[in-house]
Amino acid sequence: MMELSVMSEAEKFNKERAMLNEIVMKYADLSIKRFYGLDSQVYRDGALPEKTKQLLGLVASFVLRCDDCIRYHTIHCHEKGVSDREFVEALAIGLVVGGSIAIPHLRRALRMWDEMRS
Amino acid sequence: MMELSVMSEAEKFNKERAMLNEIVMKYADLSIKRFYGLDSQVYRDGALPEKTKQLLGLVASFVLRCDDCIRYHTIHCHEKGVSDREFVEALAIGLVVGGSIAIPHLRRALRMWDEMRS
Amino acid sequence: MMELSVMSEAEKFNKERAMLNEIVMKYADLSIKRFYGLDSQVYRDGALPEKTKQLLGLVASFVLRCDDCIRYHTIHCHEKGVSDREFVEALAIGLVVGGSIAIPHLRRALRMWDEMRS
Amino acid sequence: MMELSVMSEAEKFNKERAMLNEIVMKYADLSIKRFYGLDSQVYRDGALPEKTKQLLGLVASFVLRCDDCIRYHTIHCHEKGVSDREFVEALAIGLVVGGSIAIPHLRRALRMWDEMRS
Amino acid sequence: MMELSVMSEAEKFNKERAMLNEIVMKYADLSIKRFYGLDSQVYRDGALPEKTKQLLGLVASFVLRCDDCIRYHTIHCHEKGVSDREFVEALAIGLVVGGSIAIPHLRRALRMWDEMRS
Amino acid sequence: MMELSVMSEAEKFNKERAMLNEIVMKYADLSIKRFYGLDSQVYRDGALPEKTKQLLGLVASFVLRCDDCIRYHTIHCHEKGVSDREFVEALAIGLVVGGSIAIPHLRRALRMWDEMRS
Repeated sequence: MMELSVMSEAEKFNKERAMLNEIVMKYADLSIKRFYGLDSQVYRDGALPEKTKQLLGLVASFVLRCDDCIRYHTIHCHEKGVSDREFVEALAIGLVVGGSIAIPHLRRALRMWDEMRS
Repeated sequence: MMELSVMSEAEKFNKERAMLNEIVMKYADLSIKRFYGLDSQVYRDGALPEKTKQLLGLVASFVLRCDDCIRYHTIHCHEKGVSDREFVEALAIGLVVGGSIAIPHLRRALRMWDEMRS
Repeated sequence: MMELSVMSEAEKFNKERAMLNEIVMKYADLSIKRFYGLDSQVYRDGALPEKTKQLLGLVASFVLRCDDCIRYHTIHCHEKGVSDREFVEALAIGLVVGGSIAIPHLRRALRMWDEMRS
Repeated sequence: MMELSVMSEAEKFNKERAMLNEIVMKYADLSIKRFYGLDSQVYRDGALPEKTKQLLGLVASFVLRCDDCIRYHTIHCHEKGVSDREFVEALAIGLVVGGSIAIPHLRRALRMWDEMRS
Repeated sequence: MMELSVMSEAEKFNKERAMLNEIVMKYADLSIKRFYGLDSQVYRDGALPEKTKQLLGLVASFVLRCDDCIRYHTIHCHEKGVSDREFVEALAIGLVVGGSIAIPHLRRALRMWDEMRS
Repeated sequence: MMELSVMSEAEKFNKERAMLNEIVMKYADLSIKRFYGLDSQVYRDGALPEKTKQLLGLVASFVLRCDDCIRYHTIHCHEKGVSDREFVEALAIGLVVGGSIAIPHLRRALRMWDEMRS
């Protein structure tokens, strides 16, 4: 296994997320398990393609200012082929809707994006 | 001018919004005027089409639970040709991200959508 | 059917909620339907009795400041036999956690409670 | 007593607020009463004058998007001699920090301000 | 004194909280001191037992997504004898009310719970 | 360049903020750049002095519970000559409006203030 220090931010995030989800599943009741199922389901291709849905999840997470959720959707936007300009235009909407209070999250979202694009 | 009682929810909303924006502009300083300009600018066609941007504005407004903002983007989603299924899939993401606290807004968003679709 | 003007706030709320939920179900996809199912499921008797769960739903709705959600749990707290003092102690926690910004919701929650207790 | 229809928005707000606070005090326990005391205390003249404190309360209420709280501080800003420009500059900060999601509250705050200034 | 590295998450949290509260008390005025008093008072046994009140504080903190507050109430829920199933059922309500945006807090709450239960 | 370990919290914050803003500017479109411009503009001296505006920004950031934003305005309050009592009175308003959920931010704001005042 790679050393933590040489892992990218995306790798560290995915690793820690997996480890913590194991603890969640150790305790989760049926409601929490169903919620997790629903949380995967809503981003699947439908009338709207998954790429658009990841952008919707990104902007929702951005205006609610949750770094972990922003990271998650940033990784998936990247995987789905979202371009730099598309990513930034989505964040610009989030910034105008959510205000300057979201600027620290803008900085961290773009740092992670920049790392993945390099 | 039409009687208020026979106007649709969208017409009432647009009418009141225009009237109140006049009061805003009577007092607005340069910062507020620039913010208004920015608020129009971010939804214009770019790398992402305006239709997608209206859906992003809708979901951002939905998870932040602002009925007037939801109404505004619902009207524009309708004008840009968003289909029933696309509209509902976007709201489903908003519902899962934002939780049951947003259900009252889901009800009112779909009531307005239903009126516009009839 | 009773005249709207002689209906209690709880009756009006339940009536409008039922009517709007019909519109939701006309458009809802599988995700939204499953979310509705989950939303009923979490308040059922379990290790914690439904009465405690309704108080948890009340305080969650209160600090998130959603009047319709507060109304819903206020009605159910009343039906489950929550006493005046229990109801007020739960709201006092909500007030301290959520701050004075929640005071308008405190006023409206207690107006409805007062009407149901009379 | 004046007819409701000829009362200003500020008068209606104050009247309903007083009536609902009576219901709150009918049920309030010691914690809620102490919270109410604290809520008056923090706006009193101190190292910062009450006028500045009302502006702080206004902007806090604005970014948290509570119309009743905004109304309350708008009335008190007016009573403390806040000028049009001071009021608008405070709201402009609230708008930039809180984002376009607060625009509906900006409209309603300025409508009430306009009514009081006329 | 124990090394930081061998302390549990609960011990680290309590230690840092105590140290920072000393700084708060160095600067606090009467209002802040009274608020601190009120914040202890609302969780004391009353018509509702402290155990239920800690669950109410937990769920309120959870839907408002404050990790430190969640940690505080998690420790107190554990001390008051809340069972695994009770803890999880309370969090499931928080998850449904507050949405997937709260999932990162669910993970961290259960990691701490798991550490305390081991 | 100074070692990270001997830098004050304010220095570390300013350094990281500058570095991340460079990444933002590498990707920013016109909307994001204009938003940044607006974000500087609203705090400039006007009818309200910059000192009051920094206090407004502080309280807005405090009730919205963003540590980075609180840090930013804490530094600027200090630079503009805000006194201990003024700083604390502003935070007391934020605490009463925003509730105990903001206490962790109160602790961290006063730790930074204490460091700058020493």
